[in-house]
Amino acid sequence: MPSLLFKQFLYQEALEQLITKMSEATSVEKVRLLQNFQFEKVLKEDTKNKIVTLYGYIENKVALLLLEKTAFDLHCIKLQEIPDYIQETRLVQNNDVFHWYLSTFLQNNDSLPSVKSTLIWPAAENHIRKYSDQKRRMIRETPEMYLRIVKPFVETQRGPQIQWVNNILNHKAEAERIVLEDLDKVNGFLVLPDLKWDRQTMSALNLMAIVHRNDLASIRDLNLEHLPLLENIRSRVLNDVPKKFPVDRNQLKLFVHYPPSYYHLHVHIMHVDHETGEGSSVGRAILLDDVIERLQNCKHGFVEKTLIYGIGEQHFLFNDLTSESE
Amino acid sequence: MPSLLFKQFLYQEALEQLITKMSEATSVEKVRLLQNFQFEKVLKEDTKNKIVTLYGYIENKVALLLLEKTAFDLHCIKLQEIPDYIQETRLVQNNDVFHWYLSTFLQNNDSLPSVKSTLIWPAAENHIRKYSDQKRRMIRETPEMYLRIVKPFVETQRGPQIQWVNNILNHKAEAERIVLEDLDKVNGFLVLPDLKWDRQTMSALNLMAIVHRNDLASIRDLNLEHLPLLENIRSRVLNDVPKKFPVDRNQLKLFVHYPPSYYHLHVHIMHVDHETGEGSSVGRAILLDDVIERLQNCKHGFVEKTLIYGIGEQHFLFNDLTSESE
Repeated sequence: MPSLLFKQFLYQEALEQLITKMSEATSVEKVRLLQNFQFEKVLKEDTKNKIVTLYGYIENKVALLLLEKTAFDLHCIKLQEIPDYIQETRLVQNNDVFHWYLSTFLQNNDSLPSVKSTLIWPAAENHIRKYSDQKRRMIRETPEMYLRIVKPFVETQRGPQIQWVNNILNHKAEAERIVLEDLDKVNGFLVLPDLKWDRQTMSALNLMAIVHRNDLASIRDLNLEHLPLLENIRSRVLNDVPKKFPVDRNQLKLFVHYPPSYYHLHVHIMHVDHETGEGSSVGRAILLDDVIERLQNCKHGFVEKTLIYGIGEQHFLFNDLTSESE
Repeated sequence: MPSLLFKQFLYQEALEQLITKMSEATSVEKVRLLQNFQFEKVLKEDTKNKIVTLYGYIENKVALLLLEKTAFDLHCIKLQEIPDYIQETRLVQNNDVFHWYLSTFLQNNDSLPSVKSTLIWPAAENHIRKYSDQKRRMIRETPEMYLRIVKPFVETQRGPQIQWVNNILNHKAEAERIVLEDLDKVNGFLVLPDLKWDRQTMSALNLMAIVHRNDLASIRDLNLEHLPLLENIRSRVLNDVPKKFPVDRNQLKLFVHYPPSYYHLHVHIMHVDHETGEGSSVGRAILLDDVIERLQNCKHGFVEKTLIYGIGEQHFLFNDLTSESE
């Protein structure tokens, strides 16, 4: 008769086999989902980043399929043997020292997959909206338009909508992620990594400084009185972030967004080598230095400035703002 | 005896066959070049755009090999059959409605190549510099630093260095490419497409307005006196470009670069949906609206402003500017 221990062992093993089989079954089933995708239309095409987003159906429910070419995986590719990876090849063009070719490239699903795909199924309206190609328009937001159109909207985005920010400021959430903090009620702030950053790749460094006071929704609220707050952020971030991460102060780019993605004043801190598309473009990003200079020169600050920015057609105020804007 | 005409025909045919054979031979030879690439080091890796630049040798001469994954070619891929293109597949992760997979993808060298490569061989120093990963630093250029360090450099970049700009302004070159022109000596300018733009893809619209007068190297030279020039560019571009191309005025983003890529005052005109990485980022790009507002508010304009920008380590003034900058 097997001992109790041995029985337990057999039971444990059987359970593990069952789990493995179930997870294999799940995996096979999930792969089958992908094979049943019925294409209807292209939602978005990004030839630069090699991504295409398709809209379709699986079992009569809406499915979004994002296909993205993989980057060259320099950990897996043996670079000494790179010509062996480039397979069938044809010369497309030659001009002097320049030669252009098209080729197939070695692939296998274990270590050299060619495509990573994301299937969202069943997809809801907000997924479709998020992954659709969003056309943009430039807006010239006058102070008058701000008061009449934008401010009422901003007020709906405060309070409960940004409870998560208050949780951070009160150390009720993400306290272990804080990189830097100044507890002063008027000029204080804290710095923590943006969730998009992996905390490893220094050239992608991406931090956020959130002010402690909660009467400032965006730069629209800033005037001469807030100069010490902004100067404090600039000087402490430039001095102290290089003590926490291997970067120099002149590798840091400090800017705000207008409009911001949430309405509690914050400053983005990014590595100068980091390119983030629309996030750091003019027409959305404004250098903290330029915000400070504006406050020094005009005591009413941003209360009386016409702000120019691009806005996506999915934005709540898109129609109101585009119909007003010159 | 064959007629003269028939002889000519035979001769012509033989010649064509010879050319075809030669070009096939050249093509085979050029493909062999690629196969002989001996890797030494990675110059640059761009995981977002899926490009890697390798440094190595062919026949003991330096070679640069740029490998780039191809975008999904929606003209060649039959989207109705997309699951057949996704070949071996494994599920990587599943969370609620989100499913992540890695797969191999159908490829063939005629219509579905996976990689386009550029071989530069033999490569010169300037090629290596251009394709190397360029680390950047933020510079705070005070008016004093401009006069002492930058202005002497700018003067070496005028005259013969920008003869090509004068050729455009005098209609000696690219006259057929001009989209819009105002011949006024003081407030005039002309607009033509940036060479990077294909003139087809409207969301990538990229034009350049070059001023006719040649006493303005960059925004550093701008003061209140130049307000009519800039207002003229803004109003005519926003009014007339939509008459030439299928875009609306609020789809146009007008900005200057500081530092510019050449020292004759010009304004970039870009589609708001177009993302161009560093080219439209704060710390390089300044909205024309903000330039105009600055001139309205400060009669000395940019002569007395501290300008903040990122600069690459390959720039001629990199060492001088980084050692001075606070």
